[in-house]
Amino acid sequence: MSNTYDKAHELSRVLKESDEFNQLAELHAKVNADAQAKQMLDGFRAIQMELQQKQMQGMELTEEEIQKAQSVFELVQQHEVIGKLMEAEQRMSQLIGDLNRIIAEPLEELYGLGEGE
Amino acid sequence: MSNTYDKAHELSRVLKESDEFNQLAELHAKVNADAQAKQMLDGFRAIQMELQQKQMQGMELTEEEIQKAQSVFELVQQHEVIGKLMEAEQRMSQLIGDLNRIIAEPLEELYGLGEGE
Ligand SMILES: [Ca+2]
Ligand SMILES: [Ca+2]
Repeated sequence: MSNTYDKAHELSRVLKESDEFNQLAELHAKVNADAQAKQMLDGFRAIQMELQQKQMQGMELTEEEIQKAQSVFELVQQHEVIGKLMEAEQRMSQLIGDLNRIIAEPLEELYGLGEGE
Repeated sequence: MSNTYDKAHELSRVLKESDEFNQLAELHAKVNADAQAKQMLDGFRAIQMELQQKQMQGMELTEEEIQKAQSVFELVQQHEVIGKLMEAEQRMSQLIGDLNRIIAEPLEELYGLGEGE
């Protein structure tokens, strides 16, 4: 009989063998092997993290900060490998979100039914 | 060959058959069948949600709000069935967190290795 932990490990292995993961790992390795691309991406991530932290602290972003982040984002997206990496990350994030929703379906049913509709 | 979605559905089914889920579902049904307990729990949830929303909006909670939430929490915990339900929810939340971490291990490895330690 399998338990939830065993099954989660199976899913983890299947995810690791998936096209989505392998494309992501390949692009990740490509960016890391290219010092200029790596620096560009790290710079973008740093800006992104700084702004997210401000927002999480309930601070408003200035017009200038939003525009700066936007233009750095457009710049990094134009880099062929980084652009593809970001698309692959987007797909992975979507996939992980889907998996989490599927797994939590029993809870969804339980709480959906009980809330008096 | 199984894919990630198939495997996630398998995990979802195993979760639904788990002791953790069945205990939770049973306690949930018990509370819903007891109008007084249901009302008590709904009241607590409403307070909890209100305070969480304030915090997410970056607002500070007052001393009074924190104390009120604390005393309502202590009250509902003393209710035998609600107390057990909350413990079961806590265990389920821990389990779901564990499963999500296990599933995301390939990503953890990928990003852990690439970040230049
Ligand atoms: Ca087992
Ligand atoms: Ca399949």
